[in-house]
Amino acid sequence: MAKKEIPYKIYLEESEMPKYWYNLRADMVNKPAPLLDAKTRKPMTAEDLSPVFCDELIQQELNDTQAYFEIPEEILNFYKMYRPAPLVRAYCLEEKLQTPAKIYYKFEGNNTSGSHKLNSAIAQAYYAKKQGLKGVTTETGAGQWGTALSMACAYLGLDCKVYMVKVSYEQKPFRREVMRTYGASVTPSPSMETEVGKKILAEHPGTTGSLGCAISEAVEKATSLPGYRYVLGSVLNQVMLHQTVIGLETKAAMDKYDIKPDIIIGCAGGGSNLGGLIAPFMGEKIKGEADYRIIAVEPETCPSFTRGKYAYDYCDTGMICPLAKMYTLGSGFIPAGTHSGGLRFHGMNPTLSQLYADGLMEAVSVPQTAVFAAAEEFARVEGILPAPESSHAIKVAIDEALKCKETGEEKTILFGLTGTGYFDMMAYEKFHDGKMVDYVPTEEELAKGFSYLPKMD
Amino acid sequence: MAKKEIPYKIYLEESEMPKYWYNLRADMVNKPAPLLDAKTRKPMTAEDLSPVFCDELIQQELNDTQAYFEIPEEILNFYKMYRPAPLVRAYCLEEKLQTPAKIYYKFEGNNTSGSHKLNSAIAQAYYAKKQGLKGVTTETGAGQWGTALSMACAYLGLDCKVYMVKVSYEQKPFRREVMRTYGASVTPSPSMETEVGKKILAEHPGTTGSLGCAISEAVEKATSLPGYRYVLGSVLNQVMLHQTVIGLETKAAMDKYDIKPDIIIGCAGGGSNLGGLIAPFMGEKIKGEADYRIIAVEPETCPSFTRGKYAYDYCDTGMICPLAKMYTLGSGFIPAGTHSGGLRFHGMNPTLSQLYADGLMEAVSVPQTAVFAAAEEFARVEGILPAPESSHAIKVAIDEALKCKETGEEKTILFGLTGTGYFDMMAYEKFHDGKMVDYVPTEEELAKGFSYLPKMD
Repeated sequence: MAKKEIPYKIYLEESEMPKYWYNLRADMVNKPAPLLDAKTRKPMTAEDLSPVFCDELIQQELNDTQAYFEIPEEILNFYKMYRPAPLVRAYCLEEKLQTPAKIYYKFEGNNTSGSHKLNSAIAQAYYAKKQGLKGVTTETGAGQWGTALSMACAYLGLDCKVYMVKVSYEQKPFRREVMRTYGASVTPSPSMETEVGKKILAEHPGTTGSLGCAISEAVEKATSLPGYRYVLGSVLNQVMLHQTVIGLETKAAMDKYDIKPDIIIGCAGGGSNLGGLIAPFMGEKIKGEADYRIIAVEPETCPSFTRGKYAYDYCDTGMICPLAKMYTLGSGFIPAGTHSGGLRFHGMNPTLSQLYADGLMEAVSVPQTAVFAAAEEFARVEGILPAPESSHAIKVAIDEALKCKETGEEKTILFGLTGTGYFDMMAYEKFHDGKMVDYVPTEEELAKGFSYLPKMD
Repeated sequence: MAKKEIPYKIYLEESEMPKYWYNLRADMVNKPAPLLDAKTRKPMTAEDLSPVFCDELIQQELNDTQAYFEIPEEILNFYKMYRPAPLVRAYCLEEKLQTPAKIYYKFEGNNTSGSHKLNSAIAQAYYAKKQGLKGVTTETGAGQWGTALSMACAYLGLDCKVYMVKVSYEQKPFRREVMRTYGASVTPSPSMETEVGKKILAEHPGTTGSLGCAISEAVEKATSLPGYRYVLGSVLNQVMLHQTVIGLETKAAMDKYDIKPDIIIGCAGGGSNLGGLIAPFMGEKIKGEADYRIIAVEPETCPSFTRGKYAYDYCDTGMICPLAKMYTLGSGFIPAGTHSGGLRFHGMNPTLSQLYADGLMEAVSVPQTAVFAAAEEFARVEGILPAPESSHAIKVAIDEALKCKETGEEKTILFGLTGTGYFDMMAYEKFHDGKMVDYVPTEEELAKGFSYLPKMD
């Protein structure tokens, strides 16, 4: 087999690992719109944000001119426990598909949190520790972010309080136990620990919670406990910044072997993994140094890019966070019960939103049964059991590889494989038993979601 | 930090991966005793074994003179999907323990089966395929072996029938779903699919099954279906042979950086991972080229080495397999319900048994609460959530590192981290909730087990 010149897995040396995160905004012609204060409609200042977020993270959030941020040595050392992540040549998938396309994926699941979330969790925990804080609070739905943050906090000796949407807390006890293994306190939300939790429980005694409610509890806790701040696992530009380690490693590995992707594909929920993967490639594209087709894949149940509006909106359903300009379905939009909890967010990272608005990237939405079929096909030949979220990218990568089969084109396809599906076997079971259904939101449902958009006049 | 000369993770290049398995028996002065026919008490021939096992695997099982077996290219290519496995320097654990010891672990959990089992699963499936078989049957308890075999069979397009102990089938639905994702049929055992299953169900209508019963069903199925053979995930010498890829890679990685371990530690259930890890080191020790302290760690609930007898015994509780000479607690010994299902086997690999009898290695047994405490300590600093089985090795590695702290010795400790604990969170939950107990078998319980030993006059 002559094609063996490229190894199955390309691992960078530790010395080749990125030492800087790349702030794509610095190279953008049209910068993403600033966060606005929900009341005054004025751009948020560092001071405005400081009761909620860590100081250094606020600087990263607001800075759209500095292209590179040095990765502190402590974070680099933590990265070395599970990075560099392999860039894998999907020889077996190519053979299965009988495609002339060359398929690569960057695999971020080789750590106990099971996903790329750890890249930002350790950064956020580090800055909290550096600021002398006692701990951080956060919310988690599917549980990947909560797990990652728990690991990072355990490593740094920081307290970690996770508000976990009650329905997930009850249905995903193993996720909860992983967080407890890392010493985090995990509270089902809504809880009696916060004023907002008590209020919601009084109004809706039987509620199983929501992400919006969990965010509200986590923010209240962070702002009421001395020495605590709130941290978030996606959407924000600071999170995308930390996730650029994915794309920078990928680019370095590809450059090392003279590989140039034609198509770059990633799943998109809040957008941080996709943004991180594409950042260095998009930087070249913006500067006219190279051209890439870049595709965001979202679930058709929650189609922020493909059917949303580009508008200022709340990041949380509780409407307590600042307003961000993004592609959004409205903070009151409730997506159907898809099994990709990590992609059930109504909005999209502001940087990616601007890039999409500027025509620099494409987006497609896919039904979940097709996603699980792709996941299973991938697992059987590549030996990795992918998370449902990640499998959205697999689905479109396979589609593109099959197009190459038709046309005979030898395109190079790169996609981000963000994590593993060990804690998603209930969804796989539903798929195996033929009980999984697809759902496309109606125009009426979308209109209802848009009705929550704040008036900006 | 000057100690950074050794990277956190040592990955071999693909070109440096072992191309041969090492058959330690060829270098042993005292060879392990042969398998005996349970009825005639004569050594089993290839012909005797051929109705049950694949032909080429039988050759590997019986050959104690050929030192190296070439790894077929197809298997090497499969290995490249998840190997080389990293040899990790546990810098963070060392710092946490404040020990002068240098700790290394070979991590085998970076594949979807979550353990080292895949190393032998792909080999066994390959030889079955090469023989022109349609499929294989096996049993699984905890589920790691069944998962690994399912993956290997999916890759090669081979049918895979797994008999899963009924209690595990019901309590571990996610393990079951992983196997189904890989296209295996998973049957709760005892079942109505086999004569032995029907008989057991008639006699014990409410039984939740046992490994012995599942083996019996799998063997009956293999021998009654044209084109099928039975495969086993541990204990046999052929399995240890395939697992030497662990030790060979480890040795190559250590040699590359001039590292020489003083102590080598592995958990021991059936013995295949431990045997595979230590093989090349033990080979040097036998030949007097180097000296290593080698420690097998077993659960105190199932202490084959430390409290068992070195005698001929059945490998299965159904007493249908050949007799093997090994350290054993008797095929009728029922270990208490420890959470390390993979270590609940009454016997021990015959090669390791001979080495232990010859004083070439040590063994210790440890209580499971101490094992889970070590697992949690490890997870919090090293970021990998270990399987309970693997954590037995962690426990003793930490103990040895703490001894070094007392004496000030800078020993180099190597241990095998065989897998991840994603599907063992129920056990972690019990540990967190303080509901886990330890159990040491009484002399009476051991005597009862020994009463099952066949008379060998």
